[in-house]
Amino acid sequence: MNKHIQEILNKTDRFAAKAGCKIVEVDAVHAVAEMSVTADHLNGGNVCQGGALFTLADVAIAALVNFQGQLTFGISNNIIFVSSAKESDLLRAEAIFIADHHKIPSVEVRVTNQEGRLICHVTGMGYRKAVPLPCGK
Amino acid sequence: MNKHIQEILNKTDRFAAKAGCKIVEVDAVHAVAEMSVTADHLNGGNVCQGGALFTLADVAIAALVNFQGQLTFGISNNIIFVSSAKESDLLRAEAIFIADHHKIPSVEVRVTNQEGRLICHVTGMGYRKAVPLPCGK
Amino acid sequence: MNKHIQEILNKTDRFAAKAGCKIVEVDAVHAVAEMSVTADHLNGGNVCQGGALFTLADVAIAALVNFQGQLTFGISNNIIFVSSAKESDLLRAEAIFIADHHKIPSVEVRVTNQEGRLICHVTGMGYRKAVPLPCGK
Amino acid sequence: MNKHIQEILNKTDRFAAKAGCKIVEVDAVHAVAEMSVTADHLNGGNVCQGGALFTLADVAIAALVNFQGQLTFGISNNIIFVSSAKESDLLRAEAIFIADHHKIPSVEVRVTNQEGRLICHVTGMGYRKAVPLPCGK
Repeated sequence: MNKHIQEILNKTDRFAAKAGCKIVEVDAVHAVAEMSVTADHLNGGNVCQGGALFTLADVAIAALVNFQGQLTFGISNNIIFVSSAKESDLLRAEAIFIADHHKIPSVEVRVTNQEGRLICHVTGMGYRKAVPLPCGK
Repeated sequence: MNKHIQEILNKTDRFAAKAGCKIVEVDAVHAVAEMSVTADHLNGGNVCQGGALFTLADVAIAALVNFQGQLTFGISNNIIFVSSAKESDLLRAEAIFIADHHKIPSVEVRVTNQEGRLICHVTGMGYRKAVPLPCGK
Repeated sequence: MNKHIQEILNKTDRFAAKAGCKIVEVDAVHAVAEMSVTADHLNGGNVCQGGALFTLADVAIAALVNFQGQLTFGISNNIIFVSSAKESDLLRAEAIFIADHHKIPSVEVRVTNQEGRLICHVTGMGYRKAVPLPCGK
Repeated sequence: MNKHIQEILNKTDRFAAKAGCKIVEVDAVHAVAEMSVTADHLNGGNVCQGGALFTLADVAIAALVNFQGQLTFGISNNIIFVSSAKESDLLRAEAIFIADHHKIPSVEVRVTNQEGRLICHVTGMGYRKAVPLPCGK
């Protein structure tokens, strides 16, 4: 199932898909999701809304922690906003493990723009259930 | 301007509007935003995506910290996921101040469903700029 | 064992005892720990060190989440510093549940001084093990 | 003043000194603090108390963000506990910048033991005041 996690999540996570987030890489140690910032992602300050950035990071986390095929859901996250993302920026969220614990994995994500500038930093903890990931069919 | 913050943000925060989030109450000490969970909010596990919950909480925070008319943006958030929200749930995010600091306000949000069940708990810190909030025109 | 959790933790948590933290109240829904700020708690800025405030909050959390007698340890915390605590302040940390989950409880703590002023706000998550709390003998 | 930050903080941060924390390296891009775990650091579970780990990380953060000589204090932290530290472990906390922002710097710390095992992961945000660091005299 591992090799299909990317397409399963890209198809079944409807909120992420609507937000334009797409998992582009995933293996046992990292996952990458991308999102192009459009007018639909902007907030009242004309920069990318924090919830859109959070969603992008969350998608990368979900890909990484579920890669082994055991259902894992998020229990907490911390996000630090560093720079604004602007319309037409191409954002890349890369998730790596802080600790690939068998029960409570923790993950770190950096969201950067097309120039490599850090937009936000996210950490997250998940909880692994003793059941396999739904196949998404 | 204060009395218009609700309509300004509901109009100008396009990501929140697309996600179905709407500010329904705001004054100097609290703000409430609502969102009905639809199929478009679901993730691969068929529950409301964390990014949708974060967005809802963020909208309530933005309303509260910007109510006084001084531009304030988020610098960090922490979110604890307690229960899943399901399709057709009506979610309510209520934001109150932890500390209404003139420079770095901090806020606490509880997101609950139509039965009053806690879905997630969010804290956030903002940074007040020495400029007024854009009027949204 | 529940009725003894207070004296067990006050005796066995040597770091907290050395830091002058003492659990003064605990039941199924809240716990309170106190600490008098002395010269030994100060940092380079002559205010109470953040680690001392964290320790005080942590002691209240430990009392609350372990009250039922099932071993529970902390997995994460978030702390927001609101005001400085000064030498000779008497600090009180009150912990209540965000969610008294059977596996991953989450807790909120407010640390206030003798005037009721908020010094810091802490949230925390724990993990309950399927074993009883050591009796501290 | 920069070259003295290490000795100033080691002398003036009395809580950290009492806890056995010592800054051993600091420059513009990283800082390292160390602590040997003794019986005085243990909690009721006979492992290093979370507040002691937090204090160690906080000392490394303080060294890093104050290195340039501009007074910077902590406004928030997030800590993820990964493994227990035991009596006689030698812990090393290394702080690096997430973003060396002129107003609100953010920092990441990994605390490891003598075998390089990760004990906890900490992030933090500070606020730079427009005044120099006190000289500690």
